[in-house]
This record gives sequence, C-alpha cells and structure tokens, in this order.
Amino acid sequence: TQSTWGVHLRTMLHRSLYSLTSKVLAIGRNYAGHAKEMKSEVPQAPMFFMKPASSIITEPHPIEIPDKLVVHHELELAIIIGKSGRDIPESEAMSYVAGYALALDLTARDLQWEAKKKGLPWTVAKGYDTFTPLSKIFTCEDPHDLNMWLKVNGELRQKTHTSDMIFRVPRLISHISSVMTLKEMDVILTGTPEGVGPIQAGDVVTAEIEGHVAVEWSVVDRARPRL
Amino acid sequence: TQSTWGVHLRTMLHRSLYSLTSKVLAIGRNYAGHAKEMKSEVPQAPMFFMKPASSIITEPHPIEIPDKLVVHHELELAIIIGKSGRDIPESEAMSYVAGYALALDLTARDLQWEAKKKGLPWTVAKGYDTFTPLSKIFTCEDPHDLNMWLKVNGELRQKTHTSDMIFRVPRLISHISSVMTLKEMDVILTGTPEGVGPIQAGDVVTAEIEGHVAVEWSVVDRARPRL
Ligand SMILES: [Mg+2]
Ligand SMILES: [Mg+2]
Ligand SMILES: [Mg+2]
Repeated sequence: TQSTWGVHLRTMLHRSLYSLTSKVLAIGRNYAGHAKEMKSEVPQAPMFFMKPASSIITEPHPIEIPDKLVVHHELELAIIIGKSGRDIPESEAMSYVAGYALALDLTARDLQWEAKKKGLPWTVAKGYDTFTPLSKIFTCEDPHDLNMWLKVNGELRQKTHTSDMIFRVPRLISHISSVMTLKEMDVILTGTPEGVGPIQAGDVVTAEIEGHVAVEWSVVDRARPRL
Repeated sequence: TQSTWGVHLRTMLHRSLYSLTSKVLAIGRNYAGHAKEMKSEVPQAPMFFMKPASSIITEPHPIEIPDKLVVHHELELAIIIGKSGRDIPESEAMSYVAGYALALDLTARDLQWEAKKKGLPWTVAKGYDTFTPLSKIFTCEDPHDLNMWLKVNGELRQKTHTSDMIFRVPRLISHISSVMTLKEMDVILTGTPEGVGPIQAGDVVTAEIEGHVAVEWSVVDRARPRL
C-alpha cells in the first residue's frame, strides 16, 4: 500500500542522508552523573573522540554484538552539522546546526577499560559496525530543553533532561571546530547521562526524545564467516 | 601553458579522489625501531586508531602547526582501499587494494603523551586539520619491497625498507575489517619507522618512496581568527 511505501521511503531518506556523513565526534563525560559512575573526573574543557561513519545504522537494522563482548548502551543527543566550518565562534555556532537526532554511543566496555589502562586508542572499543544507531533527524527550538530516556526490554535504564549537559551545544561545536574542520552531515554525540549498562542478543532497546523521536532496535550476535 | 595545466589537473585529480575518503585508519608500533624509541612494547596483534578525513591535505597545501604544539613527522606507507568489505580473509585482502601513497601521520606529541598517561583518546593529538598529508596514488608489485625516506630541510630523518613492517598489508586489512567495514577510498597508514621528530613553521619536509613518488610540503603556523 501507499502508506507502507511512505514509511519505507522515509527510512531510506534518512539512511541516504547519513551516507553523506564523514565523521562522528563523541563527547565524553558531559553529564556529572555518568562521569561519577565511570569513576572519572569532570573535565575542564570538552573531551572528545571519533567514531567511524561505517558504524552508523538506522532502523530497522539491528545492533550487532561482536565476539560476545560486553557492549554498553549510552543514550545521547546528536547534533547534525549543516555546513562546513572551522574555528567557529560560540556566538555563531547555532547557525551550523541542521538538526538533531537520538543516538546510541555503543561501547565495548571491557575493551575501553583495557585501552584506558594501557594508554591506547579507544577506536576499536567505540568503532565496531552498528555501534552508532541514529534516529531520523528533527529540529527543535532549544536542544537543552529535551527529555530523553532509554529502556531495555521495557525496563527504564537511562533518563535525563538535556539541561544537565556540562558543556552545551555552542561550546561543543566551537571547541571541536578549533581542532578539525566540521563538514555538512558530520555528527556530534553530546555525551551520556548515568545508567549505562550491557545489552545482549535477544534484547530490544527502545528510546525517545519526548515529542520528537521514538526508536526501537533489536540486538543480535554479529555473524562471523568461517575464514 | 598546457603543461602547467597538466600539472594542475593532476593535483586536482588526486584531491578529488581523496574527497571520497570516509576514514583514515593508522597502525601504531608496526616497526620495532619506532616502538623502541617510544618506549612501547611491540604488540601481539595490530593496534590501530583513526584520523579524520578532514585532516588530509595534498600538495601544495602547507602543513599547519596549531597553537605552537610539538608536532612530529611520521613517514608511512598508505594503503588505498579499492572496494568495500568486512571480515576480509588475509588470502583475499590484496584484491581490496586500489593502490598506495606516501603519507605523513603528523602527531601532536605532547598531547599524545598526555592522552596516554591519562587513558584518554588520541583523537585530538592525531586529528588536527592538515595532519594527514598524502601523495598521489601509485600502484606497485610488492608493497613490502619499497625504500622510503624523509628529510627536514634537506637533512635525513627517517629511512626504511617496508620489509621491516611487523604486520604486513594483508594482515592489516583483514584485522581492521574484522572490526569495521572498509569502504572504497578508505586509507590505512601502515606505521612509521624510527627517527620521528619535531617540525616547525619555516621547515620544508621532503620525502620519497623510491621509484614511485616524491613530495614536498612547507610548514606554517596555523592562523587563528580573533574570536
Ligand atoms: Mg564521505
Ligand atoms: Mg558516549
Ligand atoms: Mg603513525
């Protein structure tokens, strides 16, 4: 029917938008509650790392758990960049925003702990295929006045109001662009609130940014070919 | 003249090729001499991190030193991926190679030491604009039978034969693709030999992969706008 095709086309539209994404930057420790649960200090300036665009999925593609690793959900507000820029002043930063999305910053927590302990890069812990599920893109008046939550199998795990961010959207855009040029469709994940925890094959993750987007991802084990 | 335009078009051609690059993966500690000079252990499996595609430059764009940081040259052979794949077996890996290039994996060494000490990501230390200079792309019979060297202001700083790599091209492609899907025009930097050291504004960096490519980059301070 026509309405089925409408849903399918909207899904394809967002997948094609994200195919333009060159890089995903992710802020660490941007909510005091999460910094505390990770036994980390709250930073003096925004701290960020990178995830590959190849890790992006959109519904209905499932989340894949590789090699039985301990994979944690991190619920985050994503900023979608609308035009290229570097050294963007905070006062102009909002004009670089095309919209927002709900994101999961999936993390192989054991590998991340090991990397932290050894002073090694976080790339593998954060970069597996399917480790950056993203919702469709929405626009809103104030990105710091959003309620968002995440459930695993219907049980509430994370819930926050985005006013709790330590560093806000203009500061994040200005800071990252002082290091590297931001491009159209680059994605910035703004950090996770407390309540992160493991997901495994068979789980269903649902999440909402209230009034804007609702998502659902199933979790499966990553199939490996015999080599 | 026609020959000037020929040179200009060839430069533009390679810049347009690299505009298709989605991600740059870089191998750490792949030459025993460099692991030793960094007081690092030689790894049991390939170790890699990511650089943003926004850090790629080609001649004649200069290398920019941001904020008077201590920036080290690292001379590396780059693999240019020719088709998309994941879980690529070593036995098929060479069919995913489109060609090779000479690369510099520029590194803000002070920031990298600090990140290592604190267990933080390497993203900023490796990811500034202009931190991934690349030559034009070439093809060759055997990527492990290449002589390459780098000079700063005419003085030899790094020199190696690519047979000294610890993990070779098929293993690197197979390993990275077991984590994340490799895409057409993704770039893999295969690690640096010993002899890394600082460059600063006013320096001229020259480098060659003998018989294939010769490059020259000038070094300037990154201009910052008044914010
Ligand atoms: Mg791209
Ligand atoms: Mg996160
Ligand atoms: Mg290197």
